[in-house]
Amino acid sequence: MKAVVLLSGGLDSTVCMAVAQNRGYELFPISFNYNQRHDRELQSASSIAKHYKATKHIVINTNMDAIGGSALTDNKLAVPVGHADHQDIPITYVPARNLIFLSYALGYAEVTGADHIFIGVNALDYSGYPDCRPEFIQQFQQLANYSTKAGVQDKRQIIIETPLLQLTKKEIVLLGTDLQAPLELTTSCYKGGQRACGHCDSCILRLKGFADAGVVDPILYELGV
Amino acid sequence: MKAVVLLSGGLDSTVCMAVAQNRGYELFPISFNYNQRHDRELQSASSIAKHYKATKHIVINTNMDAIGGSALTDNKLAVPVGHADHQDIPITYVPARNLIFLSYALGYAEVTGADHIFIGVNALDYSGYPDCRPEFIQQFQQLANYSTKAGVQDKRQIIIETPLLQLTKKEIVLLGTDLQAPLELTTSCYKGGQRACGHCDSCILRLKGFADAGVVDPILYELGV
Repeated sequence: MKAVVLLSGGLDSTVCMAVAQNRGYELFPISFNYNQRHDRELQSASSIAKHYKATKHIVINTNMDAIGGSALTDNKLAVPVGHADHQDIPITYVPARNLIFLSYALGYAEVTGADHIFIGVNALDYSGYPDCRPEFIQQFQQLANYSTKAGVQDKRQIIIETPLLQLTKKEIVLLGTDLQAPLELTTSCYKGGQRACGHCDSCILRLKGFADAGVVDPILYELGV
Repeated sequence: MKAVVLLSGGLDSTVCMAVAQNRGYELFPISFNYNQRHDRELQSASSIAKHYKATKHIVINTNMDAIGGSALTDNKLAVPVGHADHQDIPITYVPARNLIFLSYALGYAEVTGADHIFIGVNALDYSGYPDCRPEFIQQFQQLANYSTKAGVQDKRQIIIETPLLQLTKKEIVLLGTDLQAPLELTTSCYKGGQRACGHCDSCILRLKGFADAGVVDPILYELGV
């Protein structure tokens, strides 16, 4: 059995890889280079794919930044710092990003013959992105059955797996630790430096997750964090 | 009012542009460079966007061919020639292509504030692609309401418009002619030469459409076609 895994190189997608491997799937990770300001994430993804001896890791290059509108891909907008408990959808939201990622993953699953797609979306600690919600995933699952040759001609359903959907960051850290995921290879910081900044939304969520889990985060942070 | 238009540079998407302009929308065309063997389509798209004085035309570059599996993007597979009435989904099918295209278009609509997305899918002369069917479009419409900040936070619905869905190629040619679409700027041939080959599936469908409509196709074909 084969699984496509959306692998960003961050904590959540790496725990997804660990879950997929633990369930015995042959692994086909897919990553995206979308001018997300730094390539540290992609280096992490590559290391993690190698760690898991993935059958084939593909990287999709796309100038998603041509669409504009996000601080993660638009250099004219600043990445906000300091609070992860906002009510509004934040400026780091990339329009339709998970939809775009899942669409490619579906094509890759069709070509490789994978029956499952793993995505590390999370409904609790999710920074307010609309395309991380359970309703979005359910709708995508329905659409998937209508969009591929596999679904229409061969009646082969491709299942979207979201093992982290209802987990807190603490539980994700514990799950990754239990499954011996290589958390030391992961990158979460929006800034992408040699050491994580410790202050961006992503670092704050990560640090809180490790602290709540009582696990030492194995990556390096800037001095004084 | 604003509309995103999926503009490949082919006949159908150009007639879509004509319909959107005729309805009075400000036009935001989006095109894709996915290593589709030739860039003639993109040159056509650019000319057509200029013809319609589009507000902003973006081109998304993506190595969709990394996914593999299609004769349109995989140079190791030959484009088939000579019959357009097959039962099976043909080898020129690009896995999940319309899903990927619509996903980007949705992001672009969100950023530009467009309320409509025009796509030239066609359920009749559609070459057997699963993601050209009405059921696929209906499912995508449902998903769209769940995937964007616009849909979730602002309750702004983005409508997928498919003006060609139930038209024959003949009717598409007549509609384009009525609306004075610049059909002479369009490209349909899979081979992408200076003159259309006249023999690939796409050329055969196009030639039959013009013949049935009783309209002279204004593009150049290879001698002897």
